[in-house]
Amino acid sequence: MAETVFAKILRGEIPCHHVYEDEHTFAFLDVNPLSRGHILVIPREPAATLDQLSADSAAALGRVLPRIARAMMIATGATAYNVLQNNGAAAHQAVFHVHFHIIPIDGDDGLGIEWHAKKLEDGEALAKAIAAAL
Amino acid sequence: MAETVFAKILRGEIPCHHVYEDEHTFAFLDVNPLSRGHILVIPREPAATLDQLSADSAAALGRVLPRIARAMMIATGATAYNVLQNNGAAAHQAVFHVHFHIIPIDGDDGLGIEWHAKKLEDGEALAKAIAAAL
Repeated sequence: MAETVFAKILRGEIPCHHVYEDEHTFAFLDVNPLSRGHILVIPREPAATLDQLSADSAAALGRVLPRIARAMMIATGATAYNVLQNNGAAAHQAVFHVHFHIIPIDGDDGLGIEWHAKKLEDGEALAKAIAAAL
Repeated sequence: MAETVFAKILRGEIPCHHVYEDEHTFAFLDVNPLSRGHILVIPREPAATLDQLSADSAAALGRVLPRIARAMMIATGATAYNVLQNNGAAAHQAVFHVHFHIIPIDGDDGLGIEWHAKKLEDGEALAKAIAAAL
């Protein structure tokens, strides 16, 4: 896998505005934020996408998200926020090292979401196919 | 906290297309999917937002996300997807029980994202304020 900018940040070769770290995870401010307080939370494990990440790293990321979200809310005053994690270029992933965005809503600033919902079709067969693949 | 439709799904009072469950988590197909294979992964714990969720429930959600994403990819053939978790009405949250969306990209179907990035300002002071609030 090609080296990413996040690997260099983890090694301290590129500076960042550091927020938190532990054995498995590392968090810092996005240098191109959608809103004030936009944070990236990443695993130390260099997996490109979430489906390639170990369960232990994924659990460590999940565990720390509420704590970092609370600290962001205290520091920024935000009361609403989105958590977003993109996988694949077609899903807007730009850096191929897993990262969870924590993106506060700050007035008009924040994540823009377009929500074109459909009706669920073949739900029973689809749910069975997914469950069978677990 | 007001009872949500997800609490009723967890108790089996409302049917769903069930995909996965364990001690802490439960997953099922979204009945109004953005794309084929759109899954909701929720904690059994009835927290409204991620910042209110226990670390153990959050870790359990994180742990299972890669596994469910892989099964979704196998069952649908999708190779790109977004994971989204909304907190607060201003952040498009509609059901006030924590839920992670796993949303495949399927042609033109999937999550629409508007990304209006800015330059980071007061990064050093802001990172220190967030770290101090942890």
